[in-house]
Amino acid sequence: MKAVQYREIGAAPAVVTLPEPEPGPGQVLLEVAAAGVCHSDIALMSWPADQFPYRLPLTLGHEGAGRVAGFGPGVTGLAEGDLVAVYGPQGCGRCAKCAEGKENYCLDAARLGIFPPGLGAPGAMAEYLLVDDARFLLPLDGLDPVRSVPLTDAGLTPYHAIKRSLPKLVPGSTAVVIGAGGLGHVAIQLLRALTPSRVIALDVAEEKLALARSVGAHDTVLSDERAADRVRELTGGLGAEAVFDFVGAQPTVATAGAVAAVEGDVSVVGLGGGALPVGINTTAFDVAVAAPYWGSRGELREVLDLARTGALDVHIETYGIDEAPLAYERLHARKVNGRAVILPNG
Amino acid sequence: MKAVQYREIGAAPAVVTLPEPEPGPGQVLLEVAAAGVCHSDIALMSWPADQFPYRLPLTLGHEGAGRVAGFGPGVTGLAEGDLVAVYGPQGCGRCAKCAEGKENYCLDAARLGIFPPGLGAPGAMAEYLLVDDARFLLPLDGLDPVRSVPLTDAGLTPYHAIKRSLPKLVPGSTAVVIGAGGLGHVAIQLLRALTPSRVIALDVAEEKLALARSVGAHDTVLSDERAADRVRELTGGLGAEAVFDFVGAQPTVATAGAVAAVEGDVSVVGLGGGALPVGINTTAFDVAVAAPYWGSRGELREVLDLARTGALDVHIETYGIDEAPLAYERLHARKVNGRAVILPNG
Amino acid sequence: MKAVQYREIGAAPAVVTLPEPEPGPGQVLLEVAAAGVCHSDIALMSWPADQFPYRLPLTLGHEGAGRVAGFGPGVTGLAEGDLVAVYGPQGCGRCAKCAEGKENYCLDAARLGIFPPGLGAPGAMAEYLLVDDARFLLPLDGLDPVRSVPLTDAGLTPYHAIKRSLPKLVPGSTAVVIGAGGLGHVAIQLLRALTPSRVIALDVAEEKLALARSVGAHDTVLSDERAADRVRELTGGLGAEAVFDFVGAQPTVATAGAVAAVEGDVSVVGLGGGALPVGINTTAFDVAVAAPYWGSRGELREVLDLARTGALDVHIETYGIDEAPLAYERLHARKVNGRAVILPNG
Amino acid sequence: MKAVQYREIGAAPAVVTLPEPEPGPGQVLLEVAAAGVCHSDIALMSWPADQFPYRLPLTLGHEGAGRVAGFGPGVTGLAEGDLVAVYGPQGCGRCAKCAEGKENYCLDAARLGIFPPGLGAPGAMAEYLLVDDARFLLPLDGLDPVRSVPLTDAGLTPYHAIKRSLPKLVPGSTAVVIGAGGLGHVAIQLLRALTPSRVIALDVAEEKLALARSVGAHDTVLSDERAADRVRELTGGLGAEAVFDFVGAQPTVATAGAVAAVEGDVSVVGLGGGALPVGINTTAFDVAVAAPYWGSRGELREVLDLARTGALDVHIETYGIDEAPLAYERLHARKVNGRAVILPNG
Repeated sequence: MKAVQYREIGAAPAVVTLPEPEPGPGQVLLEVAAAGVCHSDIALMSWPADQFPYRLPLTLGHEGAGRVAGFGPGVTGLAEGDLVAVYGPQGCGRCAKCAEGKENYCLDAARLGIFPPGLGAPGAMAEYLLVDDARFLLPLDGLDPVRSVPLTDAGLTPYHAIKRSLPKLVPGSTAVVIGAGGLGHVAIQLLRALTPSRVIALDVAEEKLALARSVGAHDTVLSDERAADRVRELTGGLGAEAVFDFVGAQPTVATAGAVAAVEGDVSVVGLGGGALPVGINTTAFDVAVAAPYWGSRGELREVLDLARTGALDVHIETYGIDEAPLAYERLHARKVNGRAVILPNG
Repeated sequence: MKAVQYREIGAAPAVVTLPEPEPGPGQVLLEVAAAGVCHSDIALMSWPADQFPYRLPLTLGHEGAGRVAGFGPGVTGLAEGDLVAVYGPQGCGRCAKCAEGKENYCLDAARLGIFPPGLGAPGAMAEYLLVDDARFLLPLDGLDPVRSVPLTDAGLTPYHAIKRSLPKLVPGSTAVVIGAGGLGHVAIQLLRALTPSRVIALDVAEEKLALARSVGAHDTVLSDERAADRVRELTGGLGAEAVFDFVGAQPTVATAGAVAAVEGDVSVVGLGGGALPVGINTTAFDVAVAAPYWGSRGELREVLDLARTGALDVHIETYGIDEAPLAYERLHARKVNGRAVILPNG
Repeated sequence: MKAVQYREIGAAPAVVTLPEPEPGPGQVLLEVAAAGVCHSDIALMSWPADQFPYRLPLTLGHEGAGRVAGFGPGVTGLAEGDLVAVYGPQGCGRCAKCAEGKENYCLDAARLGIFPPGLGAPGAMAEYLLVDDARFLLPLDGLDPVRSVPLTDAGLTPYHAIKRSLPKLVPGSTAVVIGAGGLGHVAIQLLRALTPSRVIALDVAEEKLALARSVGAHDTVLSDERAADRVRELTGGLGAEAVFDFVGAQPTVATAGAVAAVEGDVSVVGLGGGALPVGINTTAFDVAVAAPYWGSRGELREVLDLARTGALDVHIETYGIDEAPLAYERLHARKVNGRAVILPNG
Repeated sequence: MKAVQYREIGAAPAVVTLPEPEPGPGQVLLEVAAAGVCHSDIALMSWPADQFPYRLPLTLGHEGAGRVAGFGPGVTGLAEGDLVAVYGPQGCGRCAKCAEGKENYCLDAARLGIFPPGLGAPGAMAEYLLVDDARFLLPLDGLDPVRSVPLTDAGLTPYHAIKRSLPKLVPGSTAVVIGAGGLGHVAIQLLRALTPSRVIALDVAEEKLALARSVGAHDTVLSDERAADRVRELTGGLGAEAVFDFVGAQPTVATAGAVAAVEGDVSVVGLGGGALPVGINTTAFDVAVAAPYWGSRGELREVLDLARTGALDVHIETYGIDEAPLAYERLHARKVNGRAVILPNG
């Protein structure tokens, strides 16, 4: 089968031919319909050899959706032909976190050598994907795999961050989204669907602000050194009850901290390498700053349920598997509008 | 192997010899060290044929603990010889409830024919128990299997009920426990370990009230028609922020409703067949009345963790497997103090 | 000044002339712009003398909004001319509940003889209303007093009930509203603004179901003995995560109990005198049934904030103060569409 | 009357004679029985003139308790002779935060010129204290004013910080307290009374660690550059679910961040001027770092309720009002064991 691999430190991803995998006991074989292309893949491919945590070659793709093509002994509750989405941040299934479905925070994954597909384990950017347990597959139930595949990360990650802040996003509150790209433009839609809050989007690019408005942002602000003042103005000086930073660079986390209201939340999601100092008077009282990661199994189910109501419209561009290297080039050049999706069997 | 079975409607449980089970893919074979005897087994054996929901014969025992004796292909993270407790209310592992570890509320168990051991599926009252998935086994990590086995139901069920009410059990609050038997005497200890609340225990038997005091109840009240007035008096007229009824008969649920404070919780746990009417002025404003069932996988882990701190002392009586019918007789006659435990390999 | 009073058990409300009140220390005098007419007034006027808890004559009106016309010494933070809404369920301000703004559940109000305006204390259906403390007045900040006055009860009461259930109203969930009248038609709008849930409305009258659809209900079901089956069907057998019964009669609470999903909430709000029995197997596992009352000070602020976003459209009919008795007649005859509002200075 | 004042930037506090205050409408006059001496007073007296935010002279004392000696018109629910504790972080009573009793986070206090006693407004270190509203006075109900006065800050501040983290402090969890002084030694007792967590205390002084053990810490660790490794060891590598830093210097916040477990909480409470950078990989995933301030009215009530159960034993040293300057000297020299308390009428 064809697969897109990162094979050598510093090299571009390449399309290669691999043997088709066979499902063992408890495993499921997926014929991949769609695999998402993500900024974190580009981050990963920029790491030097001494910091690269995975084995090479690595089949890419941590967002996947497709059709059940077979399974090994001991699998129940699935049938060949079922259309499913893949839950990526797979854990051991038994530790205290996994027992609550928070496999993204599995306490034993590192010790047991468990990695997400595309981030250590062979990923979804291939004609077939081997999945270790049926619990990682959620029924699409009518959702289109191609349009929905970004929900497994670009939907789930902001959903998880937003879910923490829902009790604070009461009527009269404000939510700020920094970065209106792949994750941010979904975050805006999630906030509109889940809360009565006013949503203010920040970005450095005017076309991203236009996208933000088109998907529901009430206000948009150019993300520069005056952005914090502008948000304070828009909120009558009070600031925002929740701030979601999908860039995560030092200037954006500084803005996030500056606009957070008393008892507000700041979530640093983007991999921009920034860090917000939290102490007395560095932020308003009781602002809770955290850096969340991906989401839980239950949350992915909720994201798919929300998509089924029609509340989410992920902007995508599609590519055949041979065009995957081109998709990464375009993403790197910031030419992708929304999310790029590879169709390995398309 | 020997096993204790309910074989015929209305008959007493009997010790029989069965073939030793073999683990298939994903399954684990447990050499049972201890199996708990529960009032709900007696309830089950009193149902008429047309209301009996399971197949006969049925191997009893929904509380189990033991030693991993083998496993089928596809099982990881366990080793032969591991000492483990069995999570009883097993579900499909994939539905919205199971994805959060609330397998006790599995949405698909009935449709898929999944039953807890001893409550539909072959139970723990046998020399060997076949467990369908490693996720149902929690490490004992130093806990004694015999003393701990009641925690899987008599500990988990009150823990689950109490956990809902923890936000209300602030300093100055009162918790009422009705019925100081197998579950109730654990509930008192849980409340003392987890909350700063004053704990008032009710029972019809003076020796049960003495047990209640010995495990930490601040006050005890004879459970009769004056009990509600007495609890109101003890709380300065305000009533209790949480009431846990482990009897669940009509008089006890009436008492529970009468003593619940504004915004309090009432949990009907006992199988006594009572029901508390909830409407305007039948209970105080915003008293939330619910009938919970068993507990989640994460909660069982927390119960075992709590036991490891030394905070729980379950009173037990032990019996060999051939004495199991006697244990049921004594429980039925209300002669058991705390919890009866069968040692199938003892 | 003119005022609408209930003067004698069994008599119709009458318009009378009273001396204009004078504000003492800490008190505020309100020139009333609007006062709401509520079913609970009609309930109150039907009680026999031996069950009537208040003194007569009683000036009616527990929903009020108007203009600050003066205040006594010690009042700060208000100015003459401010437009405000009145928080009705006033408490002592100091007990454990009041310290959190839950004055609707004040522990000392009864002992101290504190009553809400129109429900024991002189109400808003008069040209002037004396308010005991500035904390009971919330700024309208641009809201129209006439269109907004029903929010102080017909908005706040469902908001309070809904707020308890928000954590359960995740994507994929269902909320059921029974009774699409004064409170119910606001509840539907609140649910649409605050949750991604599917909203199903039940009523006995087809025109109320039409109103329900026009304010956002996804589905409507005639409220009869087949209603529960119909809701189960619409939810694939799972039932509803939250049910709000604004009728509260025995048949409606029975329907509410029958459609509540495992771990769901039922709120009995209507004064129809019904009560739902809660025990093992009477409702699904862990369904929490409660009868809430009005709402907190913080919640009223949130309702007004939500109204300011344009999410709420309360249907009203207006009457001059001399027409108040007519408004009550029409409400009693179920001829009012939405909420009737009296304009004492209109 | 005698009062202890900070009169000039850089000068030592002095005992002066002032006119006795008179209560106006809504105000209460308190005969002060006890006033606490706090590190934050020393911090305040170290600020240069251009950063000093209050008017001078300033009567010190933000912890107060005493006897109601009189009140102005409009005050209800209090009687002369009542023994009460003073809620310090007083707000407007009407904004969104105050409506929920979170007057410590009042949105309008700054604009309206409202300050806590001793921190802008005349404080409790005087024979009489004027209190602006009866809601700021909580009944002692049998508690000794001298032994209890530190609860109004040294009890309330850690209680507020701990309350946020209670849902995470389940069985099997660990709580870390950094700094076992005035606030820290109360925090340890609160954690033991409210949670089943293992409590690990850190301090630089061996006698403070001995105090920590005597009030209930399970383990103590010398607070140096190896402390984080030691805590990780004690927790099997997992770290702590909640960390409370009552020092707040750069080295202690760094330790706090290093020991916080995935999804844990860090509360920076001490005024040591440190700030913990939060971003991807700077702390574990979803560690929520916040800097809380004092506590709410409802929380103070809960602290007093807890004290009434006997769970709290605040270590105090007492001084007459003329010895107040000496008490500040001893506190500054770190010679006070627990909390110093002034008895203005003692």
